[in-house]
Amino acid sequence: MRRIVILGSTGSIGRQTLDIVRAFRQEFEVIGLAAGNNTALLLEQVAEFTPDYIWCSNPPAEMPDGTKILPMAEMACLPEVDQVMVALMGAVGLAPTMSALRAGKQVALSNKEPIVMAGQILKAAEAEYGGVILPVDSEPSAIWQCLQGEDNHIRRLMITASGGPFRRTPLDELDKVTPEQALRHPTWRMGDKITIDSATLMNKAFEVIESRWLFSVPWEDIAVVVHPQSTIHSMVEFDDGSVKAQLGPPSMRLPIQYALFHPKRFANDEIPRLDIGAPWSLDFEPLEPKRFPCFDLAVSAGKTGGTMPAVLSAADEVAVQAFLSGSIGFTDIYRLVDRVLSEHNPQPSPNLDAILDADRWANRRAAEIASSGVN
Amino acid sequence: MRRIVILGSTGSIGRQTLDIVRAFRQEFEVIGLAAGNNTALLLEQVAEFTPDYIWCSNPPAEMPDGTKILPMAEMACLPEVDQVMVALMGAVGLAPTMSALRAGKQVALSNKEPIVMAGQILKAAEAEYGGVILPVDSEPSAIWQCLQGEDNHIRRLMITASGGPFRRTPLDELDKVTPEQALRHPTWRMGDKITIDSATLMNKAFEVIESRWLFSVPWEDIAVVVHPQSTIHSMVEFDDGSVKAQLGPPSMRLPIQYALFHPKRFANDEIPRLDIGAPWSLDFEPLEPKRFPCFDLAVSAGKTGGTMPAVLSAADEVAVQAFLSGSIGFTDIYRLVDRVLSEHNPQPSPNLDAILDADRWANRRAAEIASSGVN
Repeated sequence: MRRIVILGSTGSIGRQTLDIVRAFRQEFEVIGLAAGNNTALLLEQVAEFTPDYIWCSNPPAEMPDGTKILPMAEMACLPEVDQVMVALMGAVGLAPTMSALRAGKQVALSNKEPIVMAGQILKAAEAEYGGVILPVDSEPSAIWQCLQGEDNHIRRLMITASGGPFRRTPLDELDKVTPEQALRHPTWRMGDKITIDSATLMNKAFEVIESRWLFSVPWEDIAVVVHPQSTIHSMVEFDDGSVKAQLGPPSMRLPIQYALFHPKRFANDEIPRLDIGAPWSLDFEPLEPKRFPCFDLAVSAGKTGGTMPAVLSAADEVAVQAFLSGSIGFTDIYRLVDRVLSEHNPQPSPNLDAILDADRWANRRAAEIASSGVN
Repeated sequence: MRRIVILGSTGSIGRQTLDIVRAFRQEFEVIGLAAGNNTALLLEQVAEFTPDYIWCSNPPAEMPDGTKILPMAEMACLPEVDQVMVALMGAVGLAPTMSALRAGKQVALSNKEPIVMAGQILKAAEAEYGGVILPVDSEPSAIWQCLQGEDNHIRRLMITASGGPFRRTPLDELDKVTPEQALRHPTWRMGDKITIDSATLMNKAFEVIESRWLFSVPWEDIAVVVHPQSTIHSMVEFDDGSVKAQLGPPSMRLPIQYALFHPKRFANDEIPRLDIGAPWSLDFEPLEPKRFPCFDLAVSAGKTGGTMPAVLSAADEVAVQAFLSGSIGFTDIYRLVDRVLSEHNPQPSPNLDAILDADRWANRRAAEIASSGVN
């Protein structure tokens, strides 16, 4: 029996997590659920899964019987909790992730920002307090699966990237693409923020930063390969040259379920299977740096470290919202993030407060630049 | 320090095994080497690796100092031996494999025939005497690597097949292809027998039979996928739908080294690395049964079991030699093997002697049919 808290239960990952809880009902006790604005769906989930605690931005007029309000960072460290699924968006996931790790919990981390912003601090907390971060993102999950039973050195991680909707768009047309075009991801259905980050490949740089901390791999041993079909989710090359890949149709259900049950695997009809009954192909090509300038920019901020990745994450969040609302163009995302990063004087070994300060500064500064014009 | 015997040391796999011994000289003591007719090369190997025992079909006029002649089945079970590499061709590998297993040795098995002929008996010997069969063949090695750290049920094995040189040859031209054409394998450099078996896909059926016994997987859970690039060496689908693949440029050095050192992996510059610096593709298609009738024929013999797979293996050995010597056509390989199999009345639970009897009978009967004409 796993006693679980799901932070972000009404979002895409949260709902799919509850689908797995429903499919393996006898394996789980839901202790807490936290949501943003979708109070109606949260109340439906409360009726079905009867958690002891909830959190939401818009508290309901009448609380369901037997359920109390509790802030996320407190829910995440309750003594009766084993697993915490962090499926939030943005910097808000950092505090509950830290709280859960300090309480020695298993933290299934779908939310990239906490580890991008504070990877080194989270890994230190893991080592100190005995908690553990379990990747839910499809690419780090693939790497994690490939590493099972392999205790020796990793020679190279090869993270795959679909290349998004603009892999073949002429470079001089990129400044004119619309949010509608950028939201049309060729292989994955995801939230708006991550879909735009996939179009700029910012998301892939976040995964490089994530993998550097999750798997303790030096920057120079992490490669990205463009793979438009998104069938191979990532690969690991070992010391002897052998490469293992994890593959399957694009679906978040598998990495979510793997994080919850690992190292066990259970059949689940809702996870799609690889179809080998007809011809199929997997294509790979090197990443074009000119097409995806956000990638190098973001990896460089990751390598600088300190408060720089928090500034990167915050500036990108503002830039993507500005693009989605029509106030800046697609290629302005790069320009805006680059400008905020270049104005920042990074602090080399920040604590969590300094990281949150940098996040707030970058948020405000990016919003100022966006409203006054990027160019 | 691994004390090793290499049976078939002058063949392709044997020589590559000695290359690995040379690269990790401090890890190995060579106790015995056995060869066929290439006495000159064997003597060179003896001078370099100073084994205590040798065997060869043509004993040298003068024995090297400190080296004694010993039959292979005796060499394989010497008390001072840890690992036996069986890199022989054909049925001759069965007796030493059995001898090594009964003595509790680690048997790196490159030679397919022993496990095709007597898979059930070898697995029973493994369980009874504590020896262990380690796959050296590239496809079963890939499966073995994918299974590391995964202790649950296999849902499906997906063995890849290049499809050989005749994957696109018009079906009505197959009866006219020459040995020269059949020996031109698109991705692998191997011995003549296995290259022809790859052109008929008989070799792939042998791997299905091999995998059924090595990994205790039911026949219906083993699929074959044609994959012309031979980059993915095989895949495993687990209960939750996750698929792992092992990949790399075609080279036998990796599976040989993995069998010798497993579960450890060591860097070796002679093992080629996957190149991701330029665009690359992996293609897959279902197997065409009409093009490769030997495949279904052989898997069916495997399923029948008893003495049938030994008859299959022996008849195929004769048929391939007859094709290479020009006495029968390419499509006659199927006809000849089919005729011998259909004349055989299989014994359901044979012992090793009965299997060797069936092998001799099939050998003789196939030779008779080949010389009197297949049609």
